[in-house]
Amino acid sequence: MFMLDLLIIGAGPAGVTASIYASRYKLSNLVIGNPLDASLAKAHLVENWPGEKSIKGADLLEKFTDHAKSLGGEFDSNNVGNVTKKDDFFEVVTTQGKTYQSKAVVICSGTFERKLGVPGEKELLGKGVSYCAICDGPFFKEKNVAVVGGGNSAVMASLMLSEHAKKVYLVHRSDNFKSEPVVLERVKKNPKIEVVAGYNLSEISGDSKVEKVTLDKEYDGKNEIALDGVFVEIGLIPNSVLLNNLGVDLDEDGSVIVDQGGQTNIEGVFSAGDITNGSGKVRQILSACSEGMIAATSAYRFIKK
Amino acid sequence: MFMLDLLIIGAGPAGVTASIYASRYKLSNLVIGNPLDASLAKAHLVENWPGEKSIKGADLLEKFTDHAKSLGGEFDSNNVGNVTKKDDFFEVVTTQGKTYQSKAVVICSGTFERKLGVPGEKELLGKGVSYCAICDGPFFKEKNVAVVGGGNSAVMASLMLSEHAKKVYLVHRSDNFKSEPVVLERVKKNPKIEVVAGYNLSEISGDSKVEKVTLDKEYDGKNEIALDGVFVEIGLIPNSVLLNNLGVDLDEDGSVIVDQGGQTNIEGVFSAGDITNGSGKVRQILSACSEGMIAATSAYRFIKK
Repeated sequence: MFMLDLLIIGAGPAGVTASIYASRYKLSNLVIGNPLDASLAKAHLVENWPGEKSIKGADLLEKFTDHAKSLGGEFDSNNVGNVTKKDDFFEVVTTQGKTYQSKAVVICSGTFERKLGVPGEKELLGKGVSYCAICDGPFFKEKNVAVVGGGNSAVMASLMLSEHAKKVYLVHRSDNFKSEPVVLERVKKNPKIEVVAGYNLSEISGDSKVEKVTLDKEYDGKNEIALDGVFVEIGLIPNSVLLNNLGVDLDEDGSVIVDQGGQTNIEGVFSAGDITNGSGKVRQILSACSEGMIAATSAYRFIKK
Repeated sequence: MFMLDLLIIGAGPAGVTASIYASRYKLSNLVIGNPLDASLAKAHLVENWPGEKSIKGADLLEKFTDHAKSLGGEFDSNNVGNVTKKDDFFEVVTTQGKTYQSKAVVICSGTFERKLGVPGEKELLGKGVSYCAICDGPFFKEKNVAVVGGGNSAVMASLMLSEHAKKVYLVHRSDNFKSEPVVLERVKKNPKIEVVAGYNLSEISGDSKVEKVTLDKEYDGKNEIALDGVFVEIGLIPNSVLLNNLGVDLDEDGSVIVDQGGQTNIEGVFSAGDITNGSGKVRQILSACSEGMIAATSAYRFIKK
């Protein structure tokens, strides 16, 4: 079987950038994963990638991928079924049963958003339903939105959105918010933010875009709120199930623990992008790409040693 | 005097990206610095910025800057003369004597390359003389090049270049190389690399591009080597002179010590890009932009607290 230098798992910005740099280091490399699964592919518009004032997420990822292919990076768009470490190489099997071997691997399989699991959430994704306030907040200028969640990301999202939106409802199932008190204090003082604590959101509805949400009990005289957007901020789950076999150390959130060079605790296993605990978990396209570049650089040094 | 939210010192990729994110967080912000001083502005071609297969460094920086301006970021292209911390704000004075005040600062003033200081070095910059093997190596396919230096970056550069170039001379003034022995061993075994130890390079010459270098004594029967490129890898010097007044902690190389959020040891002072000890000092456009994004995000959290 042909032994590649580097297998890259995940076809989002981290993985594709790892391929760009690996090719420039003359490492033979293959990216395995379905690009449609990448968070970037699902972003309706990206306006914070330097140099691109406004671009569809899928189009930006395609530009990255074209770049990687032009340098010789190979792609297999099937998903990975299993990754194992052999004596001094790695074996990756896709869900289609195809087997690849390599001297090192870079894991860039990202995160998936914890879903509310209510009617309308899936249907209205990208039509008012979003999982990223930093990315999509500016699209809701002078609109009415809700943030669902009670952790730090939900509270920060409501503040951030208040700088764009006309009105922000912060909907949380309990009145116990897990965020810094000083930040919560600011939320409570902000005239644009209305805290709706002790309520569950039971449905999101609208024809071609979000029009309203339904609560599990009456709030302010009725159990519906008219809205233009719903930001679900109830957590991201690192897609680390593949890593169980490898013995890679994860932190308390399930993120892959990496050092500044993208090195995990297992020799030859590097990681980059949203799945890691790097870059302060800010989880932006830029941090994913930068981590992909760094992991490929570390893999090059490892392979050439 | 008008108090800005954020002053960003340095108009390279880190500073400009900090402005893009600051504007999206609705922070009033001003970037101070001459973009022509940015390393990126001097890169003749960039081929490792994802999505841009090949672009002039100056053109890429202009795209970033246009993006930042379109979001409301202000720019002053004079250099900074002084930065001081007052009670709970910062004051920045330009070399033209203009004074700005802000609630927080992001320092992105980069590095400058230690120069050889020999005739021809300055004149042939971008015409065969380079300070970045990662960036420019692929432009020297099947060419003859020299790397000057004896540290880890010089030794790694010679290996990297051997994957593109026909022949690489590694010129060092002594035979004491400060790099990992295992890497040096590989250099010595590499048939494309010729170690020229104990020689000083005294001149680089050529009409419109590098044609040869002159050594301080005879090597292999003559004191000249015909070459297409010279990579000067004798160190980068963080441009941290401005930080003396602020009491910002620097590491042994003079790089600004930052945490994962771009925070320095001084409250309200953030830093990003090549000047920091972040991203394993890999010093790429991507790491600079990612750090700029992270520093702006941390500054936003600091200012809004």
